[in-house]
Amino acid sequence: MTPLDGLPARVTVYEVGARDGLQNESTIVPVGVKAEFIRRLVDAGAPAVELTSFVRADRIPQLADATELLDLLGELPVRTPVLVPNVKGLDRALAAGATEVAVFGSATESFAQRNLNRTIAQSIADFAPVVQRACEAGLPVRGYLSMCFGDPWEGAVTPEQVVRPAVTLFEQGITELSLGDTIGVATPGQVAAVLDALEVAGIDRDRLAVHFHDTYGQALSNTLVALQHGITVVDASAGGLGGCPYARSATGNLATEDLLWQLHGLGIETGIDLTAMVETSRWMASQLGRTSPSRVVTAVAQATA
Amino acid sequence: MTPLDGLPARVTVYEVGARDGLQNESTIVPVGVKAEFIRRLVDAGAPAVELTSFVRADRIPQLADATELLDLLGELPVRTPVLVPNVKGLDRALAAGATEVAVFGSATESFAQRNLNRTIAQSIADFAPVVQRACEAGLPVRGYLSMCFGDPWEGAVTPEQVVRPAVTLFEQGITELSLGDTIGVATPGQVAAVLDALEVAGIDRDRLAVHFHDTYGQALSNTLVALQHGITVVDASAGGLGGCPYARSATGNLATEDLLWQLHGLGIETGIDLTAMVETSRWMASQLGRTSPSRVVTAVAQATA
Repeated sequence: MTPLDGLPARVTVYEVGARDGLQNESTIVPVGVKAEFIRRLVDAGAPAVELTSFVRADRIPQLADATELLDLLGELPVRTPVLVPNVKGLDRALAAGATEVAVFGSATESFAQRNLNRTIAQSIADFAPVVQRACEAGLPVRGYLSMCFGDPWEGAVTPEQVVRPAVTLFEQGITELSLGDTIGVATPGQVAAVLDALEVAGIDRDRLAVHFHDTYGQALSNTLVALQHGITVVDASAGGLGGCPYARSATGNLATEDLLWQLHGLGIETGIDLTAMVETSRWMASQLGRTSPSRVVTAVAQATA
Repeated sequence: MTPLDGLPARVTVYEVGARDGLQNESTIVPVGVKAEFIRRLVDAGAPAVELTSFVRADRIPQLADATELLDLLGELPVRTPVLVPNVKGLDRALAAGATEVAVFGSATESFAQRNLNRTIAQSIADFAPVVQRACEAGLPVRGYLSMCFGDPWEGAVTPEQVVRPAVTLFEQGITELSLGDTIGVATPGQVAAVLDALEVAGIDRDRLAVHFHDTYGQALSNTLVALQHGITVVDASAGGLGGCPYARSATGNLATEDLLWQLHGLGIETGIDLTAMVETSRWMASQLGRTSPSRVVTAVAQATA
């Protein structure tokens, strides 16, 4: 059907709305609503849903109910990673029955200092015992690297700045690395450059994911180039939940629905029902008392009004 | 700088905000504000600015001041086409001193009937005397084809539906054809398919432009694929002016600023100053009493707030 060469037949959409999305919403969502949101995502066909983060409740009150949420959800038939900032968080996650964890690093010193309060080297070194204990417990570990393409304080980020921590994280034992454009400034040439540099460093494309923000409207172009470069795992947030605190903008995470429109239009399978996703995002937006920034959710809502 | 192969070094951004944008805004803008808007666009470096449409005032009251606008503007140092629906409109445009004209056709019968009140064949035949007289007057003629990728009544549109009227319009003497995704549903594979079919039909890439709407968030991905296929003229609307009446959505035309972010990020020259464009769009939005739907205008405004 598509005359575009080199695209994958299937893409795994990694759903971050429940964690990355709700963490950055000003509204604190009741745990029962979160559980219903996640069940709806799974029912819509989402193959990977990041559930929450086992952070200190005083740091991120939006996610203070992590243990209660996992209790409520029980076992789900898809990948359900949880973020853990340190060994203490990992212990809580394991006690709550987590089956996959994720750690969160930075490609730039400025963001490492501001977000993690340590240097890149310190923060990556701190992950070593987390990754090791998770591996020992038999859990896959996803790594995140934020600010892979640009940083609000440092400006442009070089591919070499991404390669160094990426290699270290894989040496520690992570199973997948998500490359984040945290402020949404990347354009397709940068994406290709970073992916090429990681390939030269020996990191296979099938262990990488991309995490684009749509702050400057570039997320889907960047995704297309990533697909053309062999990436098959793409992070997205239902309805574009989350905003972007660092750019103080209304638009943050790439909306899952906008991604699905592109993927399905290209004949790429995702296993996700777009209509069910739109319904889920509209329901969640009503819970938050606002409208979704997703172009597709908006267009579908107006077309069916 | 960019590791993406096959992209052009320079792209002509064809600015449609003053015509396609303001035509679809509910507010009627005073002619003096339009003239200032256009002068600001030219000062920002826009190389082609569609000024207005010589339609009947009772049909599109937003553009009833076409002759007065051209009088006010005088000669400008860039391409300044005006839309003409028929010979009568052409006569008025010529009398007002127009230096380039554009005609507007449809790739689908449903849209031809609803928007032009005739069949595709009738409407294209009606353009023959318009194009001929414009050519005789020494004016270049741009053609538009709307609904090239999808239609709200007919659904998907085949490449063959685009090729037929395109070939006829070029036989009549048009110098450039803009392929419109009027409802914003296209995805990159369709864009490649239509461009490939037009190439097979003998229409060179350097006589084609693309006109994407961002209703479903796909405009920049589609643009990227068009660039990869040799297109170097891209239509866009300052600040995303215009909306999309057929999809009843808030988002219509691709915003010039979002396009510039991608092009400049790829190292592609446009001659346009992004900061000046953002300022112009913010000023125009304030004249309309609303905010811009452009992601870049929004992000820049919030980053500098």
